[in-house]
Amino acid sequence: MKLGEIAASLGGRLIGDPEIAIERVASLEGADTGCLAFLSNPRYGAQAKLTRAAAIVAAEGYAAEHAHELPCPVIAVDNPLLCIAQIVQLLWQPPQREPGVSADAWVHPDATLADDVAVMPLAYVGRARIGRGSRIFPHVFVDDDVEIGAGCEVRPGCVLMHGVRLGDRVLLQPNTVLGGDGFGFASDGDQHAKIPQIGGIEVHDDVEIGSLCAIDRGSFDPTRVGRGSKLDNLVQVGHNVQIGQDVILVSQVGIAGSTTIKDQAVLAGKVGVKDHVTIGRRARIGAYSAISGDVPDEAAYSGIPAMPHGPWLRIITRMKQLDKTARRLRALEQRLEQLEQRR
Amino acid sequence: MKLGEIAASLGGRLIGDPEIAIERVASLEGADTGCLAFLSNPRYGAQAKLTRAAAIVAAEGYAAEHAHELPCPVIAVDNPLLCIAQIVQLLWQPPQREPGVSADAWVHPDATLADDVAVMPLAYVGRARIGRGSRIFPHVFVDDDVEIGAGCEVRPGCVLMHGVRLGDRVLLQPNTVLGGDGFGFASDGDQHAKIPQIGGIEVHDDVEIGSLCAIDRGSFDPTRVGRGSKLDNLVQVGHNVQIGQDVILVSQVGIAGSTTIKDQAVLAGKVGVKDHVTIGRRARIGAYSAISGDVPDEAAYSGIPAMPHGPWLRIITRMKQLDKTARRLRALEQRLEQLEQRR
Amino acid sequence: MKLGEIAASLGGRLIGDPEIAIERVASLEGADTGCLAFLSNPRYGAQAKLTRAAAIVAAEGYAAEHAHELPCPVIAVDNPLLCIAQIVQLLWQPPQREPGVSADAWVHPDATLADDVAVMPLAYVGRARIGRGSRIFPHVFVDDDVEIGAGCEVRPGCVLMHGVRLGDRVLLQPNTVLGGDGFGFASDGDQHAKIPQIGGIEVHDDVEIGSLCAIDRGSFDPTRVGRGSKLDNLVQVGHNVQIGQDVILVSQVGIAGSTTIKDQAVLAGKVGVKDHVTIGRRARIGAYSAISGDVPDEAAYSGIPAMPHGPWLRIITRMKQLDKTARRLRALEQRLEQLEQRR
Repeated sequence: MKLGEIAASLGGRLIGDPEIAIERVASLEGADTGCLAFLSNPRYGAQAKLTRAAAIVAAEGYAAEHAHELPCPVIAVDNPLLCIAQIVQLLWQPPQREPGVSADAWVHPDATLADDVAVMPLAYVGRARIGRGSRIFPHVFVDDDVEIGAGCEVRPGCVLMHGVRLGDRVLLQPNTVLGGDGFGFASDGDQHAKIPQIGGIEVHDDVEIGSLCAIDRGSFDPTRVGRGSKLDNLVQVGHNVQIGQDVILVSQVGIAGSTTIKDQAVLAGKVGVKDHVTIGRRARIGAYSAISGDVPDEAAYSGIPAMPHGPWLRIITRMKQLDKTARRLRALEQRLEQLEQRR
Repeated sequence: MKLGEIAASLGGRLIGDPEIAIERVASLEGADTGCLAFLSNPRYGAQAKLTRAAAIVAAEGYAAEHAHELPCPVIAVDNPLLCIAQIVQLLWQPPQREPGVSADAWVHPDATLADDVAVMPLAYVGRARIGRGSRIFPHVFVDDDVEIGAGCEVRPGCVLMHGVRLGDRVLLQPNTVLGGDGFGFASDGDQHAKIPQIGGIEVHDDVEIGSLCAIDRGSFDPTRVGRGSKLDNLVQVGHNVQIGQDVILVSQVGIAGSTTIKDQAVLAGKVGVKDHVTIGRRARIGAYSAISGDVPDEAAYSGIPAMPHGPWLRIITRMKQLDKTARRLRALEQRLEQLEQRR
Repeated sequence: MKLGEIAASLGGRLIGDPEIAIERVASLEGADTGCLAFLSNPRYGAQAKLTRAAAIVAAEGYAAEHAHELPCPVIAVDNPLLCIAQIVQLLWQPPQREPGVSADAWVHPDATLADDVAVMPLAYVGRARIGRGSRIFPHVFVDDDVEIGAGCEVRPGCVLMHGVRLGDRVLLQPNTVLGGDGFGFASDGDQHAKIPQIGGIEVHDDVEIGSLCAIDRGSFDPTRVGRGSKLDNLVQVGHNVQIGQDVILVSQVGIAGSTTIKDQAVLAGKVGVKDHVTIGRRARIGAYSAISGDVPDEAAYSGIPAMPHGPWLRIITRMKQLDKTARRLRALEQRLEQLEQRR
């Protein structure tokens, strides 16, 4: 494809030769002849100046100032990140998936499949309902009493146990489990009797869930993941948890039972959250934090145990001075002793 | 079902109309007409007073005092938590699983299957032995040289490699792996040569293991999980680990190789345990702790690195004062300097 | 097998009766009649003296000094750990895997399979290329556009999405996922638009990856795991991460996107690493550390946040003294007050 055509398709301003041929997308460092690369953040400007890419997509502000320093033509756009999807669609050919229901899948005769559903070989679909255009990959287990909306993609090895409901355009990465039993036991002295877990799971529209996540079914009412939320890999969501809209849970986050995460909250990697607490709207939790109580709306928390981010940073600074503090304390004691003895 | 029948079946005392129709179980907040809800902990009394449930099951002590404040009939029982299983059995219809060995499963001709074993479509069973009434779900892999006791349930996508032994009534949630190789390498300078791992795994009666857990085979002798222990999701158990009876391991716990966890110990979420240590009987380890040495019987430990819980709480308190401490230290230094100069 | 034959095969010095029959390998504690055990570390000498093993393999230095204290014959060798593989090969019979491509697997007609490839029942192989002698276990998903080298073993339930390349002799433990989409979103105000992830994954020769690991595909260029590196279970590797040669990542490590881990680095259990940082060659990161910046070559780092190991240990020591420090500070204030009042 010609660079001029790409620039036009993006509605961008081309600085350079429109006839250059572009074959694929690459990173600034990985790019070679025929590659189009992205400069999404000005702090990688140094890499842009060294790239072997055939052309770069950059923000209009950066391009206006630096295009003459770059070794190749530039397409200047408003927001390079938001252009990537368009470019990829122009230049990248995703693997073709077989449409239709494979004869090598196992599908219950009472399953209800809408038009254009793909059920790939070796998938299992019970008495479930699957909406238009959704794709069920090999080795996926869709139990009885599961509902999957339209345009969903359930990648290989995912398990959807009974009582799971997916909205539309939900994407599940491989080997994720929705609907394992919640971890509920009544401990009578030393032994632990299972409390049955019969609630389901509701995953709303436009959610993406990473590989190898575990979302447990609710005890009685459903565990919920709200519209547009994105979960990274290896995330644990306990029973009865209520996750709002557009929430971000980064890899290896763990959320204990009956906790509420409000809309647009962001939990960085490896955060742990106690049961029965509430993380406020737009709260931002730093990586490797342990949340043991409620977090207010808009707050930034960090630390073990977590507290507002500013005080935590000051504690970290003070911790690093502890050795020096101990020496100052010792010196004070000695000076004081001298003063006392002199009287 | 009528409320009076349910009360009779639980051996509870009904305060209210026995003719009310109950259709399903729900939480206090999620309940609606036709729902029976549970008040398992008096601290949720406020929710009970606002519930739209048709009736509530509550502890006798609570009911005697508060029944008149509740918006609906009450069944008073000794322990509401222990009644949930009975109620669910009365009111909830679990998904029906097909009995027998599916023609769409792959079963080795030398597999030994007891009566009433279910092997569902797309499961794989090698030269293994499976006890009476156990259920093998789709996409489960049961290797050669595996033994599964009676009344077990192995949910979709679990992998049981050779040398794994399950007792009776073991429940494995989806996509859990028993019998990956232990992480054992002999490092000769910079490179790492694999040390063969040939021990198996013993999982004793009445164990439940959550979704996406990894329990590694022993190096030579088996890794063990004792009777009645319960593991949550995404738990890591290294090679040669010996877990006692009725142990609780909450989500994302990681236990390094050759460690011993004694009976009734409880490890909260995200705890990490070093290799070759012993956690004592009934020890309780707080969430997000890093255990780097032995923990005595009955002890409560927390922290990074973990120590007895009381001292750890005091350290946390002191850490939060570090900024103030630094200011006090600076003030002392100035006052002392003034004193010294005055002489 | 006779003990004398084993000693000869190991090139070891036998102290004791060569006619003793050995049937299997066991640990010092688990050993019984007919067992050969290993003493790989002199600190387990006490266990060696109590073992019921028929014979022990021990280091020459240890054997020369202590053979007469042991209850059984000894084979003295240079490095007992390095002998285990040989012994296991002599005494242990691994499960036999069916050769060839099972009629119960699903294999795309355009897949390219070299000689001696095993594709077991219920595996799925798309338009992929698989090298000589590699084994694909049941319920493995090999997507279109995947390349697997020679002598690899892909255990049950693994998922290899398009664009994944494995070198030779790569071993994947069960239910591991290679090629889930990287966690990349462009957040426009509150909502999160997916940035397509089209890079692949390169896993070089002699890599072993544990159970339930998630390695994400790169954004444009491949995520890489270098030759000889070993990953334990439940490890997260984000998009664009570059892992060098002979790196060790212990269980539950998480590495955020675009980070570089150089050759021979060792990250202990539960370590978290920020995005876009570099961990130096032969760096050693202590368990439960949070890396938030670059780590130099050869450095030992620990802590939350991580710092050089020595200073971190001193901080830990000082933290434990904080209560005492607070009392000393209070005492100083009182003494100083008295001094000031006396003037």
